[in-house]
Amino acid sequence: MSLLVVGTVAFDAIETPFGKTDKIVGGAATYIALSASYHVNNSAIVSVVGDDFPQETIDKLGKRGVNTQGLKVKEGEKTFFWSGKYHNDMNTRDTVDTQLNVLLNFDAEIPKDYRSPDFLMLGNLDPELQLKYINELESRPKLVVMDTMNFWMDIKLNVLKQVIAKVDVLTINDEEARLLTGEYSLVKAAKQILETGPKYLIIKKGEHGALLFNKQNKVFYAPALPLEEVFDPTGAGDSFAGGFIGYITSTNDISFENMKRAVIVGSAMASFTVEKFGTERLETLEEKEVEERINQFVSLVQFDIDLVAN
Amino acid sequence: MSLLVVGTVAFDAIETPFGKTDKIVGGAATYIALSASYHVNNSAIVSVVGDDFPQETIDKLGKRGVNTQGLKVKEGEKTFFWSGKYHNDMNTRDTVDTQLNVLLNFDAEIPKDYRSPDFLMLGNLDPELQLKYINELESRPKLVVMDTMNFWMDIKLNVLKQVIAKVDVLTINDEEARLLTGEYSLVKAAKQILETGPKYLIIKKGEHGALLFNKQNKVFYAPALPLEEVFDPTGAGDSFAGGFIGYITSTNDISFENMKRAVIVGSAMASFTVEKFGTERLETLEEKEVEERINQFVSLVQFDIDLVAN
Repeated sequence: MSLLVVGTVAFDAIETPFGKTDKIVGGAATYIALSASYHVNNSAIVSVVGDDFPQETIDKLGKRGVNTQGLKVKEGEKTFFWSGKYHNDMNTRDTVDTQLNVLLNFDAEIPKDYRSPDFLMLGNLDPELQLKYINELESRPKLVVMDTMNFWMDIKLNVLKQVIAKVDVLTINDEEARLLTGEYSLVKAAKQILETGPKYLIIKKGEHGALLFNKQNKVFYAPALPLEEVFDPTGAGDSFAGGFIGYITSTNDISFENMKRAVIVGSAMASFTVEKFGTERLETLEEKEVEERINQFVSLVQFDIDLVAN
Repeated sequence: MSLLVVGTVAFDAIETPFGKTDKIVGGAATYIALSASYHVNNSAIVSVVGDDFPQETIDKLGKRGVNTQGLKVKEGEKTFFWSGKYHNDMNTRDTVDTQLNVLLNFDAEIPKDYRSPDFLMLGNLDPELQLKYINELESRPKLVVMDTMNFWMDIKLNVLKQVIAKVDVLTINDEEARLLTGEYSLVKAAKQILETGPKYLIIKKGEHGALLFNKQNKVFYAPALPLEEVFDPTGAGDSFAGGFIGYITSTNDISFENMKRAVIVGSAMASFTVEKFGTERLETLEEKEVEERINQFVSLVQFDIDLVAN
């Protein structure tokens, strides 16, 4: 099964209560592809970077089985740069600087072998670009998953809604679900969003876990792993998305039951990312660690049903 | 198995974004006893009220199997009164008025048949009184569970810590865990609290569920049921505690595995309470509704372990 990932590849400079970094590698597509790479072998990334982007990172992605033909390196241009500072609660942050640079002309091409991918993950990106890449595919994937953020709700709501109407799974956080619908209750927000197109909605609640909804009012609640320290939340949502779509791709099963498992896998991947700055943790994981982490989630929520239902 | 509940019985006046009430019956012990009564038959309540308190409510408790001999009605005095207003997020509230009244001399006696209870639930109350009632028991219960709140951390921290050192299970909310320890991370806060005496800690996170910790670093995460509307959160924490200790009492099993189930039962009971103002929902529940609600929690978090662990 093949997976195509479209999204930003970037530099980030991050400050958290635990420290700060200079420019390090970030970007939605980077986290998604790295996270998915622990579950699927056949994936490709579509993005643009400047000639300041380290070849070393491109090689690392390649070594993890990610096809990088669609990662366009633009000579004489600079990579997208974001800088942010997290508040003490680690749930809110201020953007310190945004330099779009090479993102202003996001003209990367989908590699030939990935124009009919089985699965498509649209990382957070200008919704016009998300729409363009959906339309460029030669056939409809089995599942299209899309992430977005409040920024696009503020400035490109109309085209964003067009994209949302075309995807199967939308992933947003709780505040974005409220912003998109005007509903405070996440259950009401979910119902409203699911009436606009997507078959499934995942609402990410950071340290409080994630909710998976379908159109038949089914709900699944995946916890976040309680951690001693959340070192750097950057990329947690993207790592979640990567684990989710990676697991779905590897199992080739888009049933609700399998999506539950995929949400747990996504939560496990996100729990790694926040342990270190940037993509560091996702670059060095071992398969066994991933398995153990998923098992930690099992014991975190598992209780004996028969006795309760008794 | 017998359960003794000590705590306030009160009048509340509540304002939420959905409406407001005049004086209605409230109080920690009221919610705890009502909630527990769906799981255990042999319970008693210890509290004080004024002669303005409705006999009808006392009769209702009696009809639900709660021994009310220890509910002292003080002639010529008025029942404790609390009035509060919830903010739009329903997680924060302002106290509008507090009239301690009869609480100033909380001298209710434990009914003779309940001086060696199998289980003791100390609802939120002046920690000096909590200590007094622990000491008045003729034998150590199998499990002592205690609830408290930030108010006592602010004004009676020393005696509060003495009580905490004597109980088996402490239930507090996330902000209180942070206040008590100075740790933002709930995992770190839990470790610190569990070093001060209790064998188990339950951190209640409102709409985000509850965490159960033991001294061996085991964690269990119970979700809250995602609801379309939280109508009135008053008493949710007490209903949780009542469901928890009611289930433990009825099963007479204080293993960690059974506590997980008890946390789910507590969460189910709390999810009823918030659907209406005050104790209304807890007074009219049917056993079948309770069972169905617990099953909803099962399907909310259940996923197929074998395939994930694969």
